[in-house]
Amino acid sequence: MSFFPATLENLIDKFASLPGIGRKSAQRLAFHILSLPDSEAQAFADAVTTAKSSVHCCKICQNLTEGDVCSICTSDRRDRSVICVVSEPRDVLSIERGHEYNGLYHVLHGVLSPMSHVGPDDIRIKELLQRVADEEVEEVIMATNPDTEGEATAMYISRLLRPFNIKVTRLAYGIPVGSNLEFADDATLNRAIEGRTEI
Amino acid sequence: MSFFPATLENLIDKFASLPGIGRKSAQRLAFHILSLPDSEAQAFADAVTTAKSSVHCCKICQNLTEGDVCSICTSDRRDRSVICVVSEPRDVLSIERGHEYNGLYHVLHGVLSPMSHVGPDDIRIKELLQRVADEEVEEVIMATNPDTEGEATAMYISRLLRPFNIKVTRLAYGIPVGSNLEFADDATLNRAIEGRTEI
Repeated sequence: MSFFPATLENLIDKFASLPGIGRKSAQRLAFHILSLPDSEAQAFADAVTTAKSSVHCCKICQNLTEGDVCSICTSDRRDRSVICVVSEPRDVLSIERGHEYNGLYHVLHGVLSPMSHVGPDDIRIKELLQRVADEEVEEVIMATNPDTEGEATAMYISRLLRPFNIKVTRLAYGIPVGSNLEFADDATLNRAIEGRTEI
Repeated sequence: MSFFPATLENLIDKFASLPGIGRKSAQRLAFHILSLPDSEAQAFADAVTTAKSSVHCCKICQNLTEGDVCSICTSDRRDRSVICVVSEPRDVLSIERGHEYNGLYHVLHGVLSPMSHVGPDDIRIKELLQRVADEEVEEVIMATNPDTEGEATAMYISRLLRPFNIKVTRLAYGIPVGSNLEFADDATLNRAIEGRTEI
C-alpha cells in the first residue's frame, strides 16, 4: 500500500531518478514543490521544458548554447589558434572561471570508456578533427580529467592529431596551489618532481 | 559573464532553490535533465505540475490526498476512536511503515514556533478540535517530534483537549531499539529510566 497520492508518488519517483538524489531527499523535494505557490511550481516545470527544448550543442565547439554557435566561438576577442579539449560542458565553466585561458574550446561530451561501451564514435572526436583540418589551429590542449579514462582519451586523440603537425599539449600535473606536500599522494608528487620548472 | 545559456542558468537556479541542493548539485541535475530524452524531461515537468495541481489536503485529517478525503479516513478497517497527531505528512508514512498503529491521523502541517512566527492559527489545530468535538474520539496520541517545538506543540494541544475529557497520550521516550546504551545521551537515558516498564 502506498501512503501518498499517486501523483505525489510519481513526483517523488521522478526526483529519485536524478543523480545523487535518494528516496528521502526526493520526498523532501517533492514536499517542497507542493508547498510552493502555484506560480513558482509552474515556473519550475517550465524551466525544465524550456531549457530542454532551447539548449543544444554549438555546431562548432559542441558546448551548450541556445543559438547555432556559442558566445565563445563567435567572440572576436578569443585566440582562434588554440583549442582546449574538455570532456563535459561544466569543464568549460571551470576553465573560464580562471580568466587565464583565452582560446576556443571543444567539448567531447564524454570520454573513451570500454567498460561503459563508449567508443571513439560515441564522443565528438570526429568534429574536433574536422575543425583542426578546416581551421588554422596551432595548438590543441588536452584538458580531460587526470584519471584513467581522461588520460586514455587524451592519448588517443593526440595520436589522431599527429598527422596535422600541430602542437598538442596536456594540462600540467603537480601539487595543487595552496595544498600541503604532506597530503599529496605519491603519484602526484612524482609527477610534480618530473615536471619541475626553473625559477 | 555567464558561461551557460540563459535557459540553462534558469534551470540551475530553480534546482538550487530547492532545499539541500547547492550550486554544484544544481548544475549536475540540470545537465542530467538536458541529457534525458525529450519525453522523459517532459514527464519530469509534467510530474511537477500534475502533483501540484491534484494534491491537496484531506478535509478530515489534513493529510495529502487527491480526492476530498484520504484513503486512511475512508478505510473501514481503521479504528476511528484514536487520532494520532503528527506535524508533517511524511510522519504519517513513518508511522504507517511500522504496521502497528491502526487509528486515524491528524496532520498539523507545522509546529508552534514563536521564533519563526508560527502561532496556533497557522497550523491545523482548529480542525483537530472540531474533529474531537464532532466525532466519537476516545484517545489523541501526540506524535510530534521529540524536540523543543514538537514538545511545546504537544503540550499546548493537550491543554486545549482537556475540556473534552478524553485520553491524551504522548509517544514514549526511551532508548532506540537496536541501539547501545553507550551512545544514548543523558536526557534520553533519564527518560528511559523514568518510563521503565515491568517485564
